[in-house]
Amino acid sequence: MLSVEEALTRILTEIQPLDTISLPLDQAIGSILAQDIIAHEAIPPFDNSAMDGFALLSKDSKPKQDQPARLRVIGSVAAGYVSQTRVEEGTAMRIMTGAPVPPGADAIIQVELTNSDGSQSDWVEILHEVSPGNNIRPAGEDMQNGQKVLQRGQEIGAWEIGILATLGYAHIDVIRAPQVAILGTGDEVVDLDVELQPGQIRNSNSYLLEAAVRRAGGIPHRLGIARDTSENLREKLGAALNYDLILTSGGVSVGDFDLVKDIMHEQGQMNFWRINMKPGKPVAFGHISGVPLLGLPGNPVSSAVTFELFGRPVIRKLQGYTQLLRPQIDVIVENGIQETARRRHYIRAHVTWQQGRFIARTTGNQGSHIMTSLLQANALLVIPEGGAIIKPGGSVKALMLDWPESETTA
Amino acid sequence: MLSVEEALTRILTEIQPLDTISLPLDQAIGSILAQDIIAHEAIPPFDNSAMDGFALLSKDSKPKQDQPARLRVIGSVAAGYVSQTRVEEGTAMRIMTGAPVPPGADAIIQVELTNSDGSQSDWVEILHEVSPGNNIRPAGEDMQNGQKVLQRGQEIGAWEIGILATLGYAHIDVIRAPQVAILGTGDEVVDLDVELQPGQIRNSNSYLLEAAVRRAGGIPHRLGIARDTSENLREKLGAALNYDLILTSGGVSVGDFDLVKDIMHEQGQMNFWRINMKPGKPVAFGHISGVPLLGLPGNPVSSAVTFELFGRPVIRKLQGYTQLLRPQIDVIVENGIQETARRRHYIRAHVTWQQGRFIARTTGNQGSHIMTSLLQANALLVIPEGGAIIKPGGSVKALMLDWPESETTA
Repeated sequence: MLSVEEALTRILTEIQPLDTISLPLDQAIGSILAQDIIAHEAIPPFDNSAMDGFALLSKDSKPKQDQPARLRVIGSVAAGYVSQTRVEEGTAMRIMTGAPVPPGADAIIQVELTNSDGSQSDWVEILHEVSPGNNIRPAGEDMQNGQKVLQRGQEIGAWEIGILATLGYAHIDVIRAPQVAILGTGDEVVDLDVELQPGQIRNSNSYLLEAAVRRAGGIPHRLGIARDTSENLREKLGAALNYDLILTSGGVSVGDFDLVKDIMHEQGQMNFWRINMKPGKPVAFGHISGVPLLGLPGNPVSSAVTFELFGRPVIRKLQGYTQLLRPQIDVIVENGIQETARRRHYIRAHVTWQQGRFIARTTGNQGSHIMTSLLQANALLVIPEGGAIIKPGGSVKALMLDWPESETTA
Repeated sequence: MLSVEEALTRILTEIQPLDTISLPLDQAIGSILAQDIIAHEAIPPFDNSAMDGFALLSKDSKPKQDQPARLRVIGSVAAGYVSQTRVEEGTAMRIMTGAPVPPGADAIIQVELTNSDGSQSDWVEILHEVSPGNNIRPAGEDMQNGQKVLQRGQEIGAWEIGILATLGYAHIDVIRAPQVAILGTGDEVVDLDVELQPGQIRNSNSYLLEAAVRRAGGIPHRLGIARDTSENLREKLGAALNYDLILTSGGVSVGDFDLVKDIMHEQGQMNFWRINMKPGKPVAFGHISGVPLLGLPGNPVSSAVTFELFGRPVIRKLQGYTQLLRPQIDVIVENGIQETARRRHYIRAHVTWQQGRFIARTTGNQGSHIMTSLLQANALLVIPEGGAIIKPGGSVKALMLDWPESETTA
């Protein structure tokens, strides 16, 4: 049996990031940059005021014979406008936050440290001495013209979007998101809105994987269910060849009726692995006509967990990410765990954040056919090969799938 | 000045979850359930085999005179089909994983513990004694007919989608996502693709907030930039009244040229707060013609951080979430922090996961006009009111905005 790490390494070696596309900025969140981002101007573009107040010569702010300096107000400048008037000795100009510093002035004093006769006052008293540069944000303090601000390979989050907008990048080159074909297999599987006949179950895997692919950043396409006949399987796999990745569920175990393996072997290079984990031992990986195919077990719980461990890193790598894996953290297991399995066990758990600690509670019966073990699970507790006994309140490694939010302010 | 917690409490008191809509299952991920989910059948729906192997009577598995039991194979049953034939004493039936247990049989023995003459063999030797129920997954073991499986108020993740599909829920009632109007203000602000004139800056806030709203689960609508005239502001705010929430940036400071406050007061009940935090002191909150309005500062960094602290919880509450806030964890500050500000400081930092620890590095100049302090920041380090000195390697609370992924398997 292959370890999870060995299988993942073998899979990822065969996966390369997709090609580059140009996207409008408002569609780029979550993508990886395929270009360096250079500032083509200074940011801020001009010296500007950090405060609402008055622009003046700093030397004019000195008290005279213990009296506050009194200056003549010669105008005002708002954000978005440029003063043509020069601030000379003995004068000041009303200025708003973000407005360009008028020529002549070398400091801004905030309105709270002045005294005047209201917004139309033609005089102002300066109640506090200020130094040159006070409350002035110099041009280029944030970004210099020509500076490389973001690098190829970096992830674009909401805040990077703001920086790209500031720099005027209306379109950017990114690695495109993978189009992922999702194919269920099995004569027993029927669609959601069909009345179950004896022996049938519903196609939960395709819907689960569709949602999980979307969360991982891929663009999912459900291609339905392939029946257990060569013709139907060939047809469905043929239709999947236009995508960047094919995910199948079912058809990779040792059963006589599992045709998927034969067809896969016939059409490409395929590995079938027994992986030293539960749930989810059998996994297939290879290429069909050059398209990577990841074959997950048919069991819904196994399918969900193997997608997390293998499918999600593949989708992230296709998108150009280099950080592919969930962090493992230590969590407290409220209800304890007794596990004797030889294979590594990924136990589903719900982790909450309580008084500064991550507290895990396992989600009941951990049988690999028990879908309710997935309910509200946001973590996989990692029980090493051979098992472990963890007392209530003991600690264990957890792969965090989704981080708990907190109810109250802390 | 109001504390962050006081302001948030006042805001959230005024926000209620939106109404219910019915969504197709494949669009429901990330929503909050507005109905209880009841199983209308047992899951699994029928006793089925956990293995590929043979269905038999458990008592027939006993060796006879130290020889393995030898049974007559009377047929086979695949997943999706129902056997009409009964397994009688001395007989066995080939069975695939997931197939219904044929009548008469009370156990399954996996193929690896048998010996036969291949897939067409009409006999099988049983190499291991099995107990009644062996490898049989009983009907209803996972979910009982009539059982409440998910509750109103629970979040729908990828795995819940799988469970809903299993139960045949093709549509579900959820709380709808808020439609969020985003309005920039200021005569100095121009759109992305415009050549900057002296005194102008680009509309980064609307793009940043659009991306952040989307990440928070809202549906953003950029309504452009309101100019600093009453007419234009009234027109833009009027257009925003069809949405569930209005986010503005700019126009909430003390400046003479800030008309937004006046118009807001005129059209609704509005609070203008100075909040004991940096970046981002001035924040407005209230209602305009019944629509909640959150007014964020115009400074991009302040706008980004106040959205995180106030806007995101509002959007989550509108969607029906009850866990509204990011967890705070302790992180190691690699480069240390010296901070003397009176207001609570939310320092932008990049947190990575290294050798089992969260390591934070602050993102350089933390001036509230320094947009590059947002670059690759995935956490806000919380420096309490009055400041703190944290030595390199010391620890501090961090609000995690996005969790670092890990490069290697652990």
